[in-house]
Amino acid sequence: MDSLKTGGNAQIAGVVWRALRVISDDRGAVLHMLRADSPEFTTFGEAYFSELRPQAVKGWKLHLRMTQRLVVPVGRIRFVIFDTRPSSPTLGTVMEVQSGRPDHYGLLTIPPGLWYGFQNVGTCDALIANCADMMHDPAESKGLPLGSREIPFQWETTNAVLSGDVTRSILELRFPSAARCPIH
Amino acid sequence: MDSLKTGGNAQIAGVVWRALRVISDDRGAVLHMLRADSPEFTTFGEAYFSELRPQAVKGWKLHLRMTQRLVVPVGRIRFVIFDTRPSSPTLGTVMEVQSGRPDHYGLLTIPPGLWYGFQNVGTCDALIANCADMMHDPAESKGLPLGSREIPFQWETTNAVLSGDVTRSILELRFPSAARCPIH
Repeated sequence: MDSLKTGGNAQIAGVVWRALRVISDDRGAVLHMLRADSPEFTTFGEAYFSELRPQAVKGWKLHLRMTQRLVVPVGRIRFVIFDTRPSSPTLGTVMEVQSGRPDHYGLLTIPPGLWYGFQNVGTCDALIANCADMMHDPAESKGLPLGSREIPFQWETTNAVLSGDVTRSILELRFPSAARCPIH
Repeated sequence: MDSLKTGGNAQIAGVVWRALRVISDDRGAVLHMLRADSPEFTTFGEAYFSELRPQAVKGWKLHLRMTQRLVVPVGRIRFVIFDTRPSSPTLGTVMEVQSGRPDHYGLLTIPPGLWYGFQNVGTCDALIANCADMMHDPAESKGLPLGSREIPFQWETTNAVLSGDVTRSILELRFPSAARCPIH
């Protein structure tokens, strides 16, 4: 782990965040996500959503083949990514990036081979959308518990306690109901 | 308009709503949208979002070539669709369908050639996602003002007044800030 780097400015090779357009309107905005001619587009595999309660964390996950193309149309999310690819120029790097509303809406691309997790850093429910390049296949992903010592990053939440049950890769918790929140 | 039908049970040929899976979780649910092997999938053109304030309406719109594949991961939306396709077995039909949380989450497919509009029928901001089969092209869509007499449906809102300005296809309004709401 000689090459360990961390903090807000660390970059991992192949991870890209790009600002996307939000077209405001009194009725509610239109928000871009992905087009067939976007630089990030390759193939369409599956589009789905993941909700996240305030402070909640999902992770760690590593995909062997799938590329994640993630936007946060509701709320604000902190993504933490860790590079264990043996031949990567950024091997050992921990990267953090925030994405979401109201002023940092964009598309985060995470290539395969990287560990990642994400946390809702807002006070309201958040929504993440993924337009992945392949369909869900449990055989091509791996998980680690959030408290794993294999990843040099410690999640913290104000309303949940990390479980010692390493068979589950989630925070063992009962999050309180979300505050009643507007979309952004 | 001899074949005019309206109301909750009217169906328009080619319009399909299908329930989708919501996988609940204390951290926040995972919600399906569209897969490359879904019956609705043909090609990937563009994925984007449209927010809608409580009571707000967007419409009328008609696409000449684009198929809309719509889900409502946040809130509850009423879609109203009107069939003016000359050779359609449901010519003249007005169809209404609600879609969204918490108990009616699914994928609404609207083929080209149909007028449609949609309204947030909840008390919180709503979010619609579209995974369309082609990229945005203003040349392949048409609009009509919401008050148009060409479509036998009258929108009503409790906090906005339909404008007489027929050059704009929106409700002329200033919606109040949304109530502070959870995702569902």
